[in-house]
Amino acid sequence: MDSPPRSVKLTQVTEWRNGEFRSAGDCLAAEEPLQILLSGKPLAVTMRTPGHDRELAAGFLWSEGIIESHDQIHALITPQSAGFHSNNILDVQLRDDAIELDHSQRSFISNSSCGVCGKASIDAVRSRGLRPVDSSFSLHAEILCSLPDRLRAHQSIFQRTGGLHAAALFSSHGELIVLREDIGRHNAVDKIIGWALLQNLIPLSNHALLVSGRGGFEIVQKAITAGVPIVASVSAPSSLAVQLAREFGLTLIGFLRGQRFVVYSGESRCQMRRPHPSGEPAAI
Amino acid sequence: MDSPPRSVKLTQVTEWRNGEFRSAGDCLAAEEPLQILLSGKPLAVTMRTPGHDRELAAGFLWSEGIIESHDQIHALITPQSAGFHSNNILDVQLRDDAIELDHSQRSFISNSSCGVCGKASIDAVRSRGLRPVDSSFSLHAEILCSLPDRLRAHQSIFQRTGGLHAAALFSSHGELIVLREDIGRHNAVDKIIGWALLQNLIPLSNHALLVSGRGGFEIVQKAITAGVPIVASVSAPSSLAVQLAREFGLTLIGFLRGQRFVVYSGESRCQMRRPHPSGEPAAI
Repeated sequence: MDSPPRSVKLTQVTEWRNGEFRSAGDCLAAEEPLQILLSGKPLAVTMRTPGHDRELAAGFLWSEGIIESHDQIHALITPQSAGFHSNNILDVQLRDDAIELDHSQRSFISNSSCGVCGKASIDAVRSRGLRPVDSSFSLHAEILCSLPDRLRAHQSIFQRTGGLHAAALFSSHGELIVLREDIGRHNAVDKIIGWALLQNLIPLSNHALLVSGRGGFEIVQKAITAGVPIVASVSAPSSLAVQLAREFGLTLIGFLRGQRFVVYSGESRCQMRRPHPSGEPAAI
Repeated sequence: MDSPPRSVKLTQVTEWRNGEFRSAGDCLAAEEPLQILLSGKPLAVTMRTPGHDRELAAGFLWSEGIIESHDQIHALITPQSAGFHSNNILDVQLRDDAIELDHSQRSFISNSSCGVCGKASIDAVRSRGLRPVDSSFSLHAEILCSLPDRLRAHQSIFQRTGGLHAAALFSSHGELIVLREDIGRHNAVDKIIGWALLQNLIPLSNHALLVSGRGGFEIVQKAITAGVPIVASVSAPSSLAVQLAREFGLTLIGFLRGQRFVVYSGESRCQMRRPHPSGEPAAI
C-alpha cells in the first residue's frame, strides 16, 4: 500500500502519561480541501486526506450519479495554472461536455460531498435511479471475522497517526484487494469506488466492502451505486442505513469484532461452516 | 439525561457468535432529516438523531455565524401545516426578519451542515470573524482522565444502540453539565451549543468539551464560536484541527484514554498535581 508523504504531517505535542508530561514528535493525518472541477467548472469541495485524489474525484462523480461509465472520463488532470495550490485541484474532463447540471442537481452534489447532508429522505436517493444489488456472492462467517485484522494490518497511515478511516475491498476468500484511507469515511469509500471505476471493474459484484467506522446511510448508498453486495463495519449502522440496505438487497453487517457480528440485512449472503450431511457449508 | 423514544428504532437482526447464528431484537440509532427554516425560509437540511431539535437548530445558527445573540431568536416552532413530517421541520423565527443571506453565504451554510464540506481553508473560517478563545480556565490532568468514563456512563442512547456520537460539557471539577448524543458528531456539538445559547450561557469560558469521536476541524471551529477553552477527544485530531486550535488559542487534547492524553495546543490549561514546594498544582 502506498502512503503519499502529503497524507501525514509532523508536529510537536505534549504527552501526559501516568502523572508525567513529556514533549514528543507526533504524526497527524493531513486534512486539506480538494476542489473537484467538471470539465473546468467548479463542482464540489471536499475536505480530504491528500493521496489517491484521481480515484476520489472519479469515485465521487460515480457515486453521485454524475457519470454512468468509465468511458465518459477523458482525463483527470491537475490544472498547472493553479500554481501553489494545484495539488488541491483536480479537473475531471469528460468526453462529452454536454453534461449540464441543473441548479438543484448542483446543489445536491455540493451538499452530499459530506455524505449525509442534503438528503431529505430515502425517496431522494431512490429518485437518483439506484438499482437493487444483484449478486449471488456470499462469505463464510469465519472469513468475515478475519477481515478487521487484515484491514488493520494494512492501514499504513492509521498506524502512524491513529486518526484515519479506512475502507477496503475483499474477495470471497478474504483476500484484500485494495485499501484506501481518509479523514472522511465517505472519501475512503469514494477512493475505492474510483479505483474500481478507473480499472473498469464496476459493478463490484464479487466483493465485500469493509469500513473502519460506522456503516452509515451514505456508505450503504455509495456501495449500492457500485453494486457491492456486502458492506461490513466494526461499529453500528443507523436506522436509515438498515432501511436502505433492506430495500436494495444489500447485505449489511455491523459490530464485526472478534468472533461476533450482527447481520442487519441480506442474511443469505452469510454462510456458516458447520457439520452438514452433504459436506457443504450451510447457508442460514 | 432524557432519551426521547424517537431517537431509537427497534428492529430484528441475525447475530453470529462463536459459530452460531441466532435471531434477535436490536436497537438502532435513529437517523432522520431535520429541515431548518429561518423565519419560514428553507436554510439547511441535516441528517440527525431526533431529540433536542430546538437546541440543534439554535446551535447550528450560532456556530455558523448566522445569529450573534440569543435575543435574536423570537421562537423555535414546528410548523403545524407540515402534517406527518412536521417533527422533522423546525422554524427558527427571528425578531428581525431583515437578516438576508446572500447566495454565497446560503451555499456555505447548506454545505457546512455536515461540518466539513465547503470549507476551502482556514482562511474561509477566519473570514467569518472567529475570535481567539479568551479564558484562564484550566483542568487538572487527573480530572481530564476521568472524563471519558463519566461521558460513557451517561450515554443512554449509545448504551442501547452502540452507534452514537456524544458531546458533553464539564466543569473544572469534572462535573458533567450537559450531554447530547447524535448520529453526527457535529450535531451533538451543535446541540450542546444550542443548549448553552438558549440558556444564555455563551461564551462557555469555564467549561471543557469532550467529544466521543475525532477532534476534527469542524468540532474545533464550533467550539471556538462558543468560546470553549478546552476540547478533548478519545481519538486523534486532524492536521487542520490542530492548526486552527493553535491559531485561536484553544486547548486541544487527543487520545484521552486511561491514564494518558496528548496535548496538541494550549498546554497551559492542563495542570498536573505533583509535589511542589508551595503545595499548589504546577502548570506545565
